[in-house]
Amino acid sequence: MNQQQNYCVIMAGGIGSRFWPLSRNRMPKQFLDILGTGKSFIRSTFERFVPIVPAGNFLVVTSEQYKSLVLEHLPELRPDQVLTEPVRRNTAPCIAYAASRIAAADPEANMVVSPSDHLITGEADFQSVVREGLDFVAGTDKLLTIGIKPSRPETGYGYIQVDTAGGSEGGGGAIGKVKTFTEKPNLEMARIFVESGEFFWNSGIFVWSVSGILKAMRTYLPEVEAAFAAGRDRYGTPAEQPFVDSIYPACENISVDYGVMEKSPDVYVRCGDFGWSDIGTWGSLYQHAVRDGQGNAVGGGGEVLTYGTSGTVIHVPAGKIAVVEGLEDYLVVERDDALLICRRENEQHIRNYVEDVKYRFGEEFV
Amino acid sequence: MNQQQNYCVIMAGGIGSRFWPLSRNRMPKQFLDILGTGKSFIRSTFERFVPIVPAGNFLVVTSEQYKSLVLEHLPELRPDQVLTEPVRRNTAPCIAYAASRIAAADPEANMVVSPSDHLITGEADFQSVVREGLDFVAGTDKLLTIGIKPSRPETGYGYIQVDTAGGSEGGGGAIGKVKTFTEKPNLEMARIFVESGEFFWNSGIFVWSVSGILKAMRTYLPEVEAAFAAGRDRYGTPAEQPFVDSIYPACENISVDYGVMEKSPDVYVRCGDFGWSDIGTWGSLYQHAVRDGQGNAVGGGGEVLTYGTSGTVIHVPAGKIAVVEGLEDYLVVERDDALLICRRENEQHIRNYVEDVKYRFGEEFV
Repeated sequence: MNQQQNYCVIMAGGIGSRFWPLSRNRMPKQFLDILGTGKSFIRSTFERFVPIVPAGNFLVVTSEQYKSLVLEHLPELRPDQVLTEPVRRNTAPCIAYAASRIAAADPEANMVVSPSDHLITGEADFQSVVREGLDFVAGTDKLLTIGIKPSRPETGYGYIQVDTAGGSEGGGGAIGKVKTFTEKPNLEMARIFVESGEFFWNSGIFVWSVSGILKAMRTYLPEVEAAFAAGRDRYGTPAEQPFVDSIYPACENISVDYGVMEKSPDVYVRCGDFGWSDIGTWGSLYQHAVRDGQGNAVGGGGEVLTYGTSGTVIHVPAGKIAVVEGLEDYLVVERDDALLICRRENEQHIRNYVEDVKYRFGEEFV
Repeated sequence: MNQQQNYCVIMAGGIGSRFWPLSRNRMPKQFLDILGTGKSFIRSTFERFVPIVPAGNFLVVTSEQYKSLVLEHLPELRPDQVLTEPVRRNTAPCIAYAASRIAAADPEANMVVSPSDHLITGEADFQSVVREGLDFVAGTDKLLTIGIKPSRPETGYGYIQVDTAGGSEGGGGAIGKVKTFTEKPNLEMARIFVESGEFFWNSGIFVWSVSGILKAMRTYLPEVEAAFAAGRDRYGTPAEQPFVDSIYPACENISVDYGVMEKSPDVYVRCGDFGWSDIGTWGSLYQHAVRDGQGNAVGGGGEVLTYGTSGTVIHVPAGKIAVVEGLEDYLVVERDDALLICRRENEQHIRNYVEDVKYRFGEEFV
């Protein structure tokens, strides 16, 4: 594997409204250090891949409004390594754009695509998996997704079923052909999935050759592929952004899972069991946070005193003090001009609260 | 009654730690508009008395650190009308100082003494009572306290028992001789008090002639009286503050109730039933606050959205938003750098929390 041909695309356009008010429109989750590790999620993501991919071969896809934040968190990148989408159109257009951009520079390149806001604890294991994946796809049209060995019947994730009949291929002992992608299951289904041993969590991390993914898009999302292919001569020039801004709004709003991976017959999964979480909910954050003797997860840098309080997530910013009495299994989160108090069991309603806040008091609180 | 001989002493040295973090050391309760009336407690207190007492005849006794705040809230006053105590020594030294100061200007004056942070809703009734009281004490040594007809068996107030055998005196039909002052009773006692019809809440508002109170102090607190009498020639001169600062620390720390009123045989009570509360606790604030359909009392100027929340006091400052889900009978109070969440039934612990905060994180949070 020629490391100079490895590219990494970090998708960083999310706004993380499930973590309001910690995650704000102007400072979404990927730029936060919610877990108190000392590094933002996007910084950790970069550092996870940089032993495999040269810093000059990273691309971050995000919104224009976050471009300067990305460069602040990843000062190793040149400004032209931050691609800005004028509108959000899910992962397929984002990946088509990044792959076309890379193909214009190196048609033989291989790429790994990753969300910017996940937690991975078994970093060395993860890096082995990515290296193995890059070797597996290099010079082929194979599309590889990384699956996570499930540790519990989680209903918040999509699952990938591996085809156990097919055996392994391409030298990767743990790589199997994908049989099905499934949406988020109910609990009963999730239990069956986990017990079967054939199902893995869909991490949203992909590995493929640039030519392989573009070929698959040409077949399954031809309009999206053609739109970005038309920009070949403009990529890396001042004409790039106006071109992208002109074609993006008309792109189909579709995920690469649904638009390509579930349709192509050439899709594989590498199953890993490094520690992984999408930290998509307060519940998953709570699982990974350091907790005190009463099971309270305190963070954010502020000072906290608790009395008769347990199982509660308390985040207040540095310079602030919170005295909390008599709460059991709550979220207490303050950031800037917003305070949320909510039972942990009702965290799925937070998105609705944010909508209510926006409707009633305006965008500035969101 | 010669109105020019009426003086009003407003005691404004409290720090209101029971209302932390709304009330802060640097901005105690008397300077706040906790009830959302549009006026601070001290401003309302001033306006309540100014139809009876000329603005030039007010004295406010407070700490040096609040002098400029007092003048900001009461711009009608000259700076020399704000007396500053170098240390807190309860109400007897405070009243001895103010009375001696007034006596130096007009030995024939009458004075009313009032806390700065109480709520009175029946203002016209209250003013009648004060006028009647001033007429009653003028030219006598009678000490008059204002009692409030109890509406419930409150255990948070002291009570005054009126001597029903004695009949009325001095022309004030509702004025009776005091039989006993009592400390805060337990609930059973409080019920007996209320049912008896002989007991009234002790409002901490006093009316007397300056000569009358100084004479009583000479008898019951001779050292305190003598200390302030020695300053007669210095009051109103640049020598006043150094003199006061020199004698104050050695003064006995004692209330006028305990030091004088409970000992003197010449003590009367005028029973009123204008609306009154000392707003001494969140519970009493809650009683007087406007509440929404779920019994939530929202204030402070911020924006609040509640879901499944009832009986809860929510105070957040202007420019801030709070989303509160799933609380029943709580306090949620934010101010500047501090947030308190506490069950209403545990509000009596707030003082302890404030002590803990001070000990652990320092004065700046208190």
